[in-house]
Amino acid sequence: MAASAGPEIERLISLLAKLPGMGPRSARRAALALLKRREQLLVPLAASLAETAEKVVNCSVCGSPDTRDPCAVCSDQSRDNALICVVEEAGALWAMERSGAFRGKYHVLGGLLSALDGVGPEQLRIAELIGRAKGGEAREVVLALPATVDGQTTAHYLAERLSAAGVEVTSLARGVPVGGELDWLDDGTIVQALRARRPA
Amino acid sequence: MAASAGPEIERLISLLAKLPGMGPRSARRAALALLKRREQLLVPLAASLAETAEKVVNCSVCGSPDTRDPCAVCSDQSRDNALICVVEEAGALWAMERSGAFRGKYHVLGGLLSALDGVGPEQLRIAELIGRAKGGEAREVVLALPATVDGQTTAHYLAERLSAAGVEVTSLARGVPVGGELDWLDDGTIVQALRARRPA
Repeated sequence: MAASAGPEIERLISLLAKLPGMGPRSARRAALALLKRREQLLVPLAASLAETAEKVVNCSVCGSPDTRDPCAVCSDQSRDNALICVVEEAGALWAMERSGAFRGKYHVLGGLLSALDGVGPEQLRIAELIGRAKGGEAREVVLALPATVDGQTTAHYLAERLSAAGVEVTSLARGVPVGGELDWLDDGTIVQALRARRPA
Repeated sequence: MAASAGPEIERLISLLAKLPGMGPRSARRAALALLKRREQLLVPLAASLAETAEKVVNCSVCGSPDTRDPCAVCSDQSRDNALICVVEEAGALWAMERSGAFRGKYHVLGGLLSALDGVGPEQLRIAELIGRAKGGEAREVVLALPATVDGQTTAHYLAERLSAAGVEVTSLARGVPVGGELDWLDDGTIVQALRARRPA
Protein backbone atom coordinates (compact mmCIF):
# COMPACT_ATOMS: atom_id res chain seq x y z
CA MET A 1 0.00 0.00 0.00
CA ALA A 2 1.43 3.34 -1.03
CA ALA A 3 1.90 6.06 1.54
CA SER A 4 0.02 8.53 -0.63
CA ALA A 5 -3.05 8.47 1.58
CA GLY A 6 -1.01 9.15 4.69
CA PRO A 7 -0.46 7.01 7.80
CA GLU A 8 -3.81 8.00 9.39
CA ILE A 9 -5.87 6.48 6.56
CA GLU A 10 -3.53 3.47 6.37
CA ARG A 11 -4.12 2.86 10.06
CA LEU A 12 -7.89 3.21 9.65
CA ILE A 13 -7.85 0.68 6.79
CA SER A 14 -5.78 -1.83 8.78
CA LEU A 15 -8.15 -1.55 11.76
CA LEU A 16 -11.27 -1.91 9.60
CA ALA A 17 -9.68 -5.00 8.00
CA LYS A 18 -9.72 -6.69 11.43
CA LEU A 19 -13.52 -6.66 11.61
CA PRO A 20 -15.13 -10.03 10.89
CA GLY A 21 -16.01 -10.42 7.22
CA MET A 22 -13.67 -7.62 6.19
CA GLY A 23 -10.42 -7.99 4.27
CA PRO A 24 -7.88 -5.48 2.95
CA ARG A 25 -9.96 -4.66 -0.12
CA SER A 26 -13.31 -4.25 1.60
CA ALA A 27 -11.57 -2.25 4.34
CA ARG A 28 -10.29 0.17 1.69
CA ARG A 29 -13.79 0.49 0.26
CA ALA A 30 -15.18 1.10 3.74
CA ALA A 31 -12.52 3.75 4.44
CA LEU A 32 -13.37 5.42 1.15
CA ALA A 33 -17.09 5.41 1.97
CA LEU A 34 -16.32 6.91 5.37
CA LEU A 35 -14.19 9.69 3.83
CA LYS A 36 -16.87 10.40 1.28
CA ARG A 37 -19.72 10.54 3.79
CA ARG A 38 -17.89 12.41 6.48
CA GLU A 39 -20.80 14.07 8.28
CA GLN A 40 -23.34 11.27 7.77
CA LEU A 41 -21.07 8.32 8.58
CA LEU A 42 -17.48 9.03 9.65
CA VAL A 43 -18.21 11.50 12.46
CA PRO A 44 -21.25 9.60 13.87
CA LEU A 45 -19.39 6.26 13.76
CA ALA A 46 -16.38 7.75 15.56
CA ALA A 47 -18.71 9.17 18.23
CA SER A 48 -20.69 5.94 18.54
CA LEU A 49 -17.54 3.84 19.00
CA ALA A 50 -16.17 6.27 21.57
CA GLU A 51 -19.46 6.22 23.45
CA THR A 52 -19.56 2.42 23.35
CA ALA A 53 -15.98 2.18 24.61
CA GLU A 54 -16.76 4.62 27.38
CA LYS A 55 -20.20 3.49 28.54
CA VAL A 56 -20.70 -0.18 27.73
CA VAL A 57 -19.62 -2.66 30.40
CA ASN A 58 -20.22 -6.37 30.86
CA CYS A 59 -23.07 -7.06 33.28
CA SER A 60 -21.66 -8.45 36.53
CA VAL A 61 -24.55 -10.93 36.78
CA CYS A 62 -24.97 -12.39 33.28
CA GLY A 63 -21.91 -11.04 31.44
CA SER A 64 -23.74 -9.38 28.55
CA PRO A 65 -22.63 -5.93 27.36
CA ASP A 66 -24.85 -3.01 28.37
CA THR A 67 -24.57 0.57 29.58
CA ARG A 68 -25.88 -0.35 32.99
CA ASP A 69 -24.85 -2.99 35.50
CA PRO A 70 -26.87 -5.11 36.17
CA CYS A 71 -27.99 -5.03 32.52
CA ALA A 72 -31.53 -4.24 31.32
CA VAL A 73 -32.49 -7.94 31.18
CA CYS A 74 -31.09 -8.77 34.62
CA SER A 75 -32.85 -5.69 36.06
CA ASP A 76 -36.20 -6.56 34.47
CA GLN A 77 -38.41 -7.70 37.37
CA SER A 78 -41.09 -9.00 34.98
CA ARG A 79 -38.75 -11.73 33.75
CA ASP A 80 -38.48 -15.18 35.32
CA ASN A 81 -35.46 -15.25 37.64
CA ALA A 82 -35.61 -19.02 37.99
CA LEU A 83 -35.09 -19.70 34.28
CA ILE A 84 -31.57 -19.08 32.96
CA CYS A 85 -30.57 -19.40 29.33
CA VAL A 86 -26.86 -20.07 28.77
CA VAL A 87 -25.34 -18.65 25.57
CA GLU A 88 -21.83 -18.51 24.12
CA GLU A 89 -21.79 -14.81 23.26
CA ALA A 90 -24.02 -11.74 23.42
CA GLY A 91 -24.83 -12.24 19.72
CA ALA A 92 -26.76 -15.40 20.63
CA LEU A 93 -28.51 -13.50 23.44
CA TRP A 94 -29.59 -10.83 20.95
CA ALA A 95 -30.86 -13.55 18.60
CA MET A 96 -32.88 -15.14 21.43
CA GLU A 97 -34.33 -11.73 22.31
CA ARG A 98 -35.28 -11.05 18.69
CA SER A 99 -37.27 -14.30 18.68
CA GLY A 100 -39.32 -12.91 21.59
CA ALA A 101 -39.88 -16.46 22.86
CA PHE A 102 -37.83 -16.36 26.06
CA ARG A 103 -38.86 -14.52 29.22
CA GLY A 104 -36.19 -15.71 31.62
CA LYS A 105 -32.67 -14.43 32.32
CA TYR A 106 -29.39 -15.14 30.56
CA HIS A 107 -25.84 -16.19 31.25
CA VAL A 108 -23.11 -15.36 28.72
CA LEU A 109 -20.20 -17.82 28.90
CA GLY A 110 -17.84 -15.70 26.83
CA GLY A 111 -16.77 -18.66 24.69
CA LEU A 112 -16.85 -22.46 24.55
CA LEU A 113 -14.69 -25.20 26.03
CA SER A 114 -12.14 -26.17 23.43
CA ALA A 115 -9.31 -28.66 23.80
CA LEU A 116 -7.80 -27.46 20.51
CA ASP A 117 -7.77 -23.78 21.48
CA GLY A 118 -6.82 -24.58 25.06
CA VAL A 119 -9.99 -23.06 26.54
CA GLY A 120 -10.81 -24.62 29.92
CA PRO A 121 -13.67 -24.00 32.37
CA GLU A 122 -11.66 -21.32 34.20
CA GLN A 123 -11.48 -19.17 31.05
CA LEU A 124 -15.28 -19.04 30.81
CA ARG A 125 -17.91 -17.62 33.15
CA ILE A 126 -18.80 -21.12 34.36
CA ALA A 127 -18.03 -20.63 38.07
CA GLU A 128 -20.43 -17.66 38.04
CA LEU A 129 -23.13 -19.83 36.43
CA ILE A 130 -22.70 -22.61 38.99
CA GLY A 131 -22.79 -19.92 41.68
CA ARG A 132 -26.10 -18.59 40.36
CA ALA A 133 -27.51 -22.13 40.23
CA LYS A 134 -26.28 -23.08 43.70
CA GLY A 135 -27.51 -19.80 45.11
CA GLY A 136 -30.98 -21.20 44.58
CA GLU A 137 -31.69 -18.61 41.95
CA ALA A 138 -32.35 -21.12 39.17
CA ARG A 139 -35.03 -23.78 38.73
CA GLU A 140 -34.12 -24.59 35.14
CA VAL A 141 -31.11 -23.82 32.99
CA VAL A 142 -31.66 -23.86 29.22
CA LEU A 143 -28.47 -24.54 27.29
CA ALA A 144 -28.61 -22.54 24.02
CA LEU A 145 -25.17 -23.47 22.72
CA PRO A 146 -24.19 -24.02 19.09
CA ALA A 147 -24.62 -27.51 17.61
CA THR A 148 -20.88 -27.79 17.03
CA VAL A 149 -18.34 -30.12 18.67
CA ASP A 150 -17.17 -27.41 21.09
CA GLY A 151 -20.77 -26.34 21.76
CA GLN A 152 -21.88 -29.86 22.61
CA THR A 153 -18.77 -30.57 24.69
CA THR A 154 -19.53 -27.46 26.69
CA ALA A 155 -23.20 -28.45 26.98
CA HIS A 156 -22.32 -31.89 28.37
CA TYR A 157 -19.87 -30.42 30.84
CA LEU A 158 -22.41 -27.85 32.06
CA ALA A 159 -25.25 -30.41 32.25
CA GLU A 160 -23.14 -32.56 34.56
CA ARG A 161 -22.06 -29.70 36.81
CA LEU A 162 -25.55 -28.16 36.97
CA SER A 163 -27.37 -31.45 37.62
CA ALA A 164 -24.97 -32.05 40.50
CA ALA A 165 -26.10 -28.67 41.81
CA GLY A 166 -29.70 -29.87 41.74
CA VAL A 167 -30.91 -27.80 38.79
CA GLU A 168 -33.00 -29.06 35.92
CA VAL A 169 -30.97 -28.74 32.72
CA THR A 170 -32.56 -28.57 29.29
CA SER A 171 -31.19 -27.69 25.90
CA LEU A 172 -32.66 -26.22 22.73
CA ALA A 173 -34.33 -28.87 20.62
CA ARG A 174 -32.71 -30.27 17.53
CA GLY A 175 -34.05 -28.09 14.84
CA VAL A 176 -30.98 -25.98 15.19
CA PRO A 177 -29.10 -27.11 12.07
CA VAL A 178 -25.84 -28.98 12.76
CA GLY A 179 -22.93 -26.55 12.50
CA GLY A 180 -25.32 -23.63 12.76
CA GLU A 181 -24.75 -20.63 14.98
CA LEU A 182 -27.66 -18.91 16.71
CA ASP A 183 -26.63 -15.57 15.31
CA TRP A 184 -27.47 -16.69 11.79
CA LEU A 185 -30.76 -18.47 12.52
CA ASP A 186 -34.17 -17.18 11.56
CA ASP A 187 -36.53 -16.30 14.41
CA GLY A 188 -39.02 -19.07 13.60
CA THR A 189 -36.44 -21.79 14.08
CA ILE A 190 -35.41 -20.29 17.40
CA VAL A 191 -39.03 -20.25 18.58
CA GLN A 192 -39.50 -23.92 17.60
CA ALA A 193 -36.25 -25.00 19.19
CA LEU A 194 -37.12 -23.21 22.42
CA ARG A 195 -40.64 -24.73 22.61
CA ALA A 196 -39.28 -28.24 22.10
CA ARG A 197 -36.48 -27.96 24.63
CA ARG A 198 -35.79 -31.24 26.46
CA PRO A 199 -33.71 -32.69 29.30
CA ALA A 200 -29.98 -32.49 28.49
CA MET B 1 -33.82 -6.05 17.27
CA ALA B 2 -34.43 -6.21 20.98
CA ALA B 3 -33.50 -3.29 23.17
CA SER B 4 -31.61 -5.60 25.51
CA ALA B 5 -28.25 -4.41 24.28
CA GLY B 6 -29.20 -0.78 24.85
CA PRO B 7 -29.56 2.09 22.38
CA GLU B 8 -25.78 2.75 22.18
CA ILE B 9 -25.01 -0.69 20.75
CA GLU B 10 -28.10 -0.52 18.51
CA ARG B 11 -26.82 2.75 17.10
CA LEU B 12 -23.33 1.32 16.56
CA ILE B 13 -24.80 -1.65 14.69
CA SER B 14 -26.96 0.54 12.46
CA LEU B 15 -23.94 2.73 11.59
CA LEU B 16 -21.71 -0.26 10.86
CA ALA B 17 -24.46 -1.66 8.61
CA LYS B 18 -24.08 1.40 6.36
CA LEU B 19 -20.50 0.47 5.41
CA PRO B 20 -20.18 -1.05 1.93
CA GLY B 21 -20.40 -4.85 2.02
CA MET B 22 -22.02 -4.84 5.47
CA GLY B 23 -25.61 -5.74 6.30
CA PRO B 24 -27.54 -5.95 9.58
CA ARG B 25 -26.17 -9.38 10.43
CA SER B 26 -22.53 -8.74 9.62
CA ALA B 27 -22.83 -5.40 11.45
CA ARG B 28 -23.97 -7.27 14.58
CA ARG B 29 -21.00 -9.63 14.27
CA ALA B 30 -18.68 -6.66 13.84
CA ALA B 31 -20.17 -4.93 16.89
CA LEU B 32 -19.73 -8.12 18.90
CA ALA B 33 -16.09 -8.43 17.78
CA LEU B 34 -15.54 -4.80 18.76
CA LEU B 35 -17.08 -5.35 22.22
CA LYS B 36 -15.02 -8.48 22.71
CA ARG B 37 -11.72 -6.92 21.66
CA ARG B 38 -12.21 -3.62 23.41
CA GLU B 39 -8.60 -2.56 23.92
CA GLN B 40 -7.19 -4.08 20.73
CA LEU B 41 -9.93 -2.97 18.33
CA LEU B 42 -12.80 -0.84 19.71
CA VAL B 43 -10.71 1.89 21.36
CA PRO B 44 -8.09 2.15 18.56
CA LEU B 45 -10.79 2.23 15.86
CA ALA B 46 -12.70 4.97 17.69
CA ALA B 47 -9.47 6.98 17.97
CA SER B 48 -8.50 6.36 14.35
CA LEU B 49 -11.91 7.48 13.05
CA ALA B 50 -11.84 10.58 15.24
CA GLU B 51 -8.33 11.41 14.01
CA THR B 52 -9.38 10.87 10.40
CA ALA B 53 -12.44 13.08 10.83
CA GLU B 54 -10.32 15.77 12.44
CA LYS B 55 -7.18 15.74 10.28
CA VAL B 56 -7.98 14.40 6.83
CA VAL B 57 -9.05 16.96 4.23
CA ASN B 58 -9.46 16.79 0.47
CA CYS B 59 -6.42 18.19 -1.35
CA SER B 60 -7.33 21.54 -2.92
CA VAL B 61 -5.33 20.64 -6.04
CA CYS B 62 -6.22 17.03 -6.88
CA GLY B 63 -9.10 16.32 -4.49
CA SER B 64 -7.64 13.23 -2.82
CA PRO B 65 -7.94 12.81 0.97
CA ASP B 66 -4.80 13.48 3.00
CA THR B 67 -3.73 15.11 6.24
CA ARG B 68 -1.93 17.87 4.38
CA ASP B 69 -3.04 20.26 1.67
CA PRO B 70 -1.64 20.06 -0.97
CA CYS B 71 -1.46 16.29 -0.49
CA ALA B 72 1.75 14.22 -0.40
CA VAL B 73 1.53 13.39 -4.13
CA CYS B 74 0.83 16.98 -5.22
CA SER B 75 3.70 18.21 -3.01
CA ASP B 76 6.17 15.64 -4.37
CA GLN B 77 8.58 17.65 -6.54
CA SER B 78 10.12 14.47 -7.99
CA ARG B 79 6.87 13.64 -9.79
CA ASP B 80 5.99 14.78 -13.30
CA ASN B 81 3.72 17.84 -13.06
CA ALA B 82 2.82 17.70 -16.74
CA LEU B 83 1.25 14.24 -16.56
CA ILE B 84 -2.16 14.05 -14.84
CA CYS B 85 -4.07 10.83 -14.21
CA VAL B 86 -7.85 11.29 -13.84
CA VAL B 87 -9.61 8.84 -11.48
CA GLU B 88 -13.17 8.51 -10.19
CA GLU B 89 -12.31 8.12 -6.51
CA ALA B 90 -9.30 7.96 -4.19
CA GLY B 91 -9.59 4.15 -4.21
CA ALA B 92 -8.49 4.10 -7.86
CA LEU B 93 -5.65 6.49 -7.02
CA TRP B 94 -4.47 4.09 -4.27
CA ALA B 95 -4.63 1.19 -6.75
CA MET B 96 -2.54 3.15 -9.29
CA GLU B 97 0.00 3.96 -6.57
CA ARG B 98 0.21 0.32 -5.49
CA SER B 99 1.16 -0.60 -9.06
CA GLY B 100 4.14 1.76 -8.75
CA ALA B 101 3.93 2.40 -12.51
CA PHE B 102 2.80 6.02 -12.51
CA ARG B 103 5.03 8.94 -11.61
CA GLY B 104 2.77 11.85 -12.53
CA LYS B 105 0.08 13.67 -10.57
CA TYR B 106 -3.61 12.85 -10.09
CA HIS B 107 -7.03 14.42 -10.32
CA VAL B 108 -9.93 12.88 -8.38
CA LEU B 109 -13.31 13.61 -10.01
CA GLY B 110 -15.38 12.54 -7.01
CA GLY B 111 -17.79 10.50 -9.14
CA LEU B 112 -18.89 9.93 -12.73
CA LEU B 113 -21.33 11.68 -15.04
CA SER B 114 -24.64 9.84 -14.83
CA ALA B 115 -27.89 10.74 -16.51
CA LEU B 116 -29.75 8.18 -14.38
CA ASP B 117 -28.43 9.48 -11.07
CA GLY B 118 -28.63 13.10 -12.24
CA VAL B 119 -24.89 13.75 -11.90
CA GLY B 120 -23.79 16.56 -14.22
CA PRO B 121 -20.35 18.12 -14.82
CA GLU B 122 -20.93 20.75 -12.13
CA GLN B 123 -21.25 18.04 -9.42
CA LEU B 124 -17.76 16.73 -10.23
CA ARG B 125 -14.33 18.34 -10.00
CA ILE B 126 -14.25 18.86 -13.78
CA ALA B 127 -13.90 22.65 -13.80
CA GLU B 128 -10.80 22.25 -11.60
CA LEU B 129 -9.36 19.71 -14.05
CA ILE B 130 -9.94 21.98 -17.06
CA GLY B 131 -8.40 24.79 -15.03
CA ARG B 132 -5.27 22.74 -14.36
CA ALA B 133 -5.05 21.80 -18.06
CA LYS B 134 -5.61 25.36 -19.31
CA GLY B 135 -3.17 26.72 -16.77
CA GLY B 136 -0.48 25.07 -18.88
CA GLU B 137 0.28 22.64 -16.13
CA ALA B 138 -0.54 19.51 -18.14
CA ARG B 139 1.04 18.03 -21.26
CA GLU B 140 -0.89 14.77 -21.13
CA VAL B 141 -4.00 13.65 -19.24
CA VAL B 142 -4.42 9.89 -18.72
CA LEU B 143 -8.05 8.90 -18.17
CA ALA B 144 -8.14 5.95 -15.71
CA LEU B 145 -11.93 5.64 -15.48
CA PRO B 146 -13.96 2.43 -15.09
CA ALA B 147 -15.00 0.51 -18.22
CA THR B 148 -18.68 1.06 -17.44
CA VAL B 149 -21.30 3.11 -19.28
CA ASP B 150 -20.93 6.03 -16.87
CA GLY B 151 -17.14 5.72 -16.90
CA GLN B 152 -16.99 5.84 -20.68
CA THR B 153 -19.54 8.66 -20.94
CA THR B 154 -17.38 10.66 -18.55
CA ALA B 155 -14.21 9.76 -20.48
CA HIS B 156 -15.71 10.96 -23.78
CA TYR B 157 -16.90 14.19 -22.21
CA LEU B 158 -13.48 14.88 -20.66
CA ALA B 159 -11.59 13.95 -23.84
CA GLU B 160 -13.59 16.52 -25.77
CA ARG B 161 -13.16 19.30 -23.22
CA LEU B 162 -9.45 18.60 -22.67
CA SER B 163 -8.61 18.31 -26.38
CA ALA B 164 -10.26 21.69 -26.87
CA ALA B 165 -7.89 22.99 -24.19
CA GLY B 166 -4.95 21.72 -26.24
CA VAL B 167 -3.94 18.79 -24.02
CA GLU B 168 -3.10 15.30 -25.22
CA VAL B 169 -5.67 12.86 -23.81
CA THR B 170 -5.00 9.12 -23.42
CA SER B 171 -6.77 6.36 -21.55
CA LEU B 172 -5.66 3.08 -19.93
CA ALA B 173 -5.38 0.21 -22.42
CA ARG B 174 -8.19 -2.36 -22.47
CA GLY B 175 -7.19 -5.99 -22.67
CA VAL B 176 -6.66 -9.31 -20.96
CA PRO B 177 -5.75 -8.78 -17.27
CA VAL B 178 -2.43 -10.25 -16.12
CA GLY B 179 -3.07 -13.78 -14.91
CA GLY B 180 -6.47 -13.75 -16.59
CA GLU B 181 -7.62 -16.85 -18.45
CA LEU B 182 -9.56 -16.38 -21.67
CA ASP B 183 -12.10 -18.91 -20.45
CA TRP B 184 -13.23 -16.61 -17.69
CA LEU B 185 -13.13 -13.32 -19.56
CA ASP B 186 -16.27 -11.57 -20.72
CA ASP B 187 -16.79 -11.19 -24.48
CA GLY B 188 -16.41 -7.42 -24.37
CA THR B 189 -12.88 -7.65 -22.97
CA ILE B 190 -11.87 -10.24 -25.57
CA VAL B 191 -13.23 -8.03 -28.38
CA GLN B 192 -11.27 -5.03 -27.01
CA ALA B 193 -8.10 -7.10 -26.54
CA LEU B 194 -8.33 -8.46 -30.07
CA ARG B 195 -8.93 -5.04 -31.62
CA ALA B 196 -5.95 -3.60 -29.76
CA ARG B 197 -3.65 -6.53 -30.55
CA ARG B 198 -0.03 -5.69 -31.12
CA PRO B 199 3.20 -7.37 -32.27
CA ALA B 200 4.23 -10.14 -29.85
